[in-house]
Order: sequence, then C-alpha cells, then structure tokens
Amino acid sequence: MKIGFLQFNPVFNEPEANMKKLRKMITAESSEYDLLVLPELSNSGYLFSSIEEVKNSAEEIPVGPFCTMLAEIAAQKEVYFVSGVCEKDGKDIYNSSILVQPDGFIHTYRKTHLFNEEKKWFSPGNTGFEVYIISGKFGEVKIGMMICFDWIFPESARTLALKGSQIICHPSNLVLSYCQSAMFTRAVENRVFTITANRTGKERNSENELTFTGESIIVDPKGNYLARAGKDDECIAITEIDPEHANDKDVTPLNNIFEDRRPEMYND
Amino acid sequence: MKIGFLQFNPVFNEPEANMKKLRKMITAESSEYDLLVLPELSNSGYLFSSIEEVKNSAEEIPVGPFCTMLAEIAAQKEVYFVSGVCEKDGKDIYNSSILVQPDGFIHTYRKTHLFNEEKKWFSPGNTGFEVYIISGKFGEVKIGMMICFDWIFPESARTLALKGSQIICHPSNLVLSYCQSAMFTRAVENRVFTITANRTGKERNSENELTFTGESIIVDPKGNYLARAGKDDECIAITEIDPEHANDKDVTPLNNIFEDRRPEMYND
Repeated sequence: MKIGFLQFNPVFNEPEANMKKLRKMITAESSEYDLLVLPELSNSGYLFSSIEEVKNSAEEIPVGPFCTMLAEIAAQKEVYFVSGVCEKDGKDIYNSSILVQPDGFIHTYRKTHLFNEEKKWFSPGNTGFEVYIISGKFGEVKIGMMICFDWIFPESARTLALKGSQIICHPSNLVLSYCQSAMFTRAVENRVFTITANRTGKERNSENELTFTGESIIVDPKGNYLARAGKDDECIAITEIDPEHANDKDVTPLNNIFEDRRPEMYND
Repeated sequence: MKIGFLQFNPVFNEPEANMKKLRKMITAESSEYDLLVLPELSNSGYLFSSIEEVKNSAEEIPVGPFCTMLAEIAAQKEVYFVSGVCEKDGKDIYNSSILVQPDGFIHTYRKTHLFNEEKKWFSPGNTGFEVYIISGKFGEVKIGMMICFDWIFPESARTLALKGSQIICHPSNLVLSYCQSAMFTRAVENRVFTITANRTGKERNSENELTFTGESIIVDPKGNYLARAGKDDECIAITEIDPEHANDKDVTPLNNIFEDRRPEMYND
C-alpha cells in the first residue's frame, strides 16, 4: 500500500487559491498513492483575526467546493484523501479532518483538543476518535484521524489504536517541532503507522507571527521514520508499507502490548 | 533540588558484591544529591535461569540487607533513594522499586507490566502507581515510581502525573534504546521531570545474552535532556532543578494540558 503526505504553504484565507495549488500537486502523474494526507486547515490557512475571516473560508461537508474537489479527484484516481478543512455546520465552525473515499463518501473528524486561539473560532470537536475501513487493491485497512495538537494527549492515538487503527492520519499546522520527535513514541507505544502532514510558511496578523515547521513525517510501528520532508518544502512524499505490520502487537514472545495493559491500574 | 541517577553494572546474583559497589558510589563525598535513582533489580542483576537463583537474591522489604543499607545511608546523608530491588514477600517474588526515606521509612512499588521472561519469576505488581511526598531543605516534592518496561504504556506515567507526581523515578534495565528517545514524550505530554536510571553490561545464560544500553537520562518538563550517561559508564550524574516547573501545565495562554483533557472522548 502506498501512503503519503502532502506538505505545502497555504495562501491565507483564499480557498480558491489553495484548491488550485492542491489540485495541481495531487493530480501530478508522478504522484502514485493509495492514501494521501494533507495538512490541517488546508482550505483556509491558520492565523485568523476575526470570525468573519473564518466564515469566509469555512465550508459545509460534504457539499463545499474543497470537499467536492477532493471527492472528484479521489474518484478519478481511485484513492483516499485525508485533509484538514475549515468546516461550517449551521452556526458552528469546526477545525475538522475529512476522509474522502473514491465512492464520494466523506467521513468527518472534528478536532478534540483545540490549540490556543483556535478556541476563539472553533467549537470543540464532538465526533470523538473513530476508525474507518478503507479498501482497494491494497486490501482492507483501518485508519483513524487526529489533528495537530491532539498529538500531545496520549489518549488520542491510544484511543484510535485500541479501536483498531493501523494507520493514524494526522493533518497538522505545527509551530513547534516537539511533535515530530514525539510521533516516534506514538507509533511505538501503539505499534501503528503514523502520517503527520504538516504545513510550511509564515502567517502574521496585527498580534502574532507564526512560522510553521514543516518536516512532515511517516513513522512505522517500530519507530522508523520512513519519510521526512524538509522544513520549507512543498512536496508530496510517498512510501510503500504493509499495513499488516500494525497488527503485530507482540514486542517479545511473552509481551503483547495491548493484552498486557492493566486498565484497573490506570487513573483516568 | 539536586536530583540524579546512578548507572552501574551489577554483578549477577551477588547481592553482597552489589551492595559493596553501590555503597562506595553513593557515599562518595563528591556526590551531593537530595534524590538519587538507581537501576532496576540493583541488588540482583537481571538474567535469571531458575527460581532458585531469583530466591537467592530476593529480600524482604524493609528488613533485607539491601534496604537496610540504603536506609542507613539515607539517614546519614539526609537524602532519598529510589532503587529497583528483587523483592520476596512470603511465597511471592516481585520486581519492585523502593523509595527510601531519611527517616528509615520505605515505600514499595511493584512493577505493573512485566517484560518477557520476568513473567516466569515475578508476580505482576499489585501496588498500582502511587505518589509520595518527600520533603527536605528543598521543600516538599511529589514523586512517583515506574519500572523499565512500564514506560511503553503511556498510562503509567500519565497515572503518576495525574496524581500529582512532579518527578517520575524510573529504575530500568533496558536492552533496547527506544525508551531513551520516548522519555522525551513522557516528560512533555505530562510536563514532569523524569529520571531513568539504566544499567550497563552484559549478562548471559545458556539460552540468552543481553546487553544493557546505559544512557541513563534526566528529562525536564519541556523535553530538555538535562543529563545523559554514556552507554558503558558506571557513574552518578546529578542536576539541579526546580520541581515547581512541573506544576505548570500551561502550554499556551489558553491551553492547560491537564484541564484540556476530555476523558469522555477516550477509550480505555
């Protein structure tokens, strides 16, 4: 199975420009993948200054233009996309991630743990962490989604892994580089593949300037970094994996790291 | 507050030899510390071949000779020790960690997650993860204990941190070096100090040969490695910290990583 990430520098609050940039990258004939993960808020950019700005970029799932574009390309290429999207649902705005299937169906995850000023614009996610079966010539694979800051809570990846996720798709807009180191642990402690699709570039408004850290990564269940982008590259990186490797939770002949858990000893 | 680890190569199944070696190291005038963490199974070594061997090294807490030695030195130096100990309790044998106070009192943690062939010799720990207040000229500090393989279960350090642990003491006998990378994550996700005291050397029996990986580490709540031993050094490393830094769970003005947890979204 060919999995990958796309790393790019979105144009702030110009969904049309971002769709144009992304369409070109993801339809390039050189890019062959079964599952491609795009950054958080790929349609909108990140550093909002007002709710009006957020609403300008936000779209409805599944009928918005960004969703529609990804669904169209997913069908053409018979591939799956995971992407961050600025979502509007009635009066609520969410920092969401969508799983776009080649049959046009779209699953939505809404970010559980909002970071910093995101709390001003977005409602806390209400979907929880769910696992989805995707299928194709690569077989059947279980994937889950979490978004950016969700990484710092070990319960996010743990929940997805305990529910059977073999691959954790992780659209991000990281401003520090802790996460790129910590995903080693998320992969190893759960014995899963992780795909962190980060963005690049700078954004500024009257109060803040943010530099996004790039270095998107794919990590395997033994903690090997299978791919790593540069800090500033706009690129797609793809690697071939056997998702079955994530089913093996035996770290020694006598240790299965899921069966060895002792929840009665844990404080929640 | 001065915290440290001791890294050494125990003599297999010769508790007297280990006590002699350790006494010399921990009473050296050059070593000034308030809290010193020793490796897992410091009295016994690791690679047992029979239950008779285990019983030869195992001792009762708090009356055994290893405990008595540490309590005596803790009183003389007015310091605290955490150390792995091969413990006998009636018919049961545990892979335990003791917290030895200068007043002679000893708290016991029994390893929750046994690694590989440890399951042949040791009973699963029945103490759970508890937090203890230690006090001295450094003030009052909350510490917790976990042992070696407990690290791979994020719930171990999480439980200790949620119960208030500012410093996680982590006696270890590591044969891989995953853990030394992953403790970055344990420290950062919980905003605590961690002290991993590993051992060095090789042990072999008729079936196995193990090489222990050294590189004991101290990590601060922001993921900085404050100390790191070599792969083979027998040494004590000490660093001065302000344990209060572990009380600050605010990672941004709007994010407290404990208050931001959403347990209703987590699967246990």
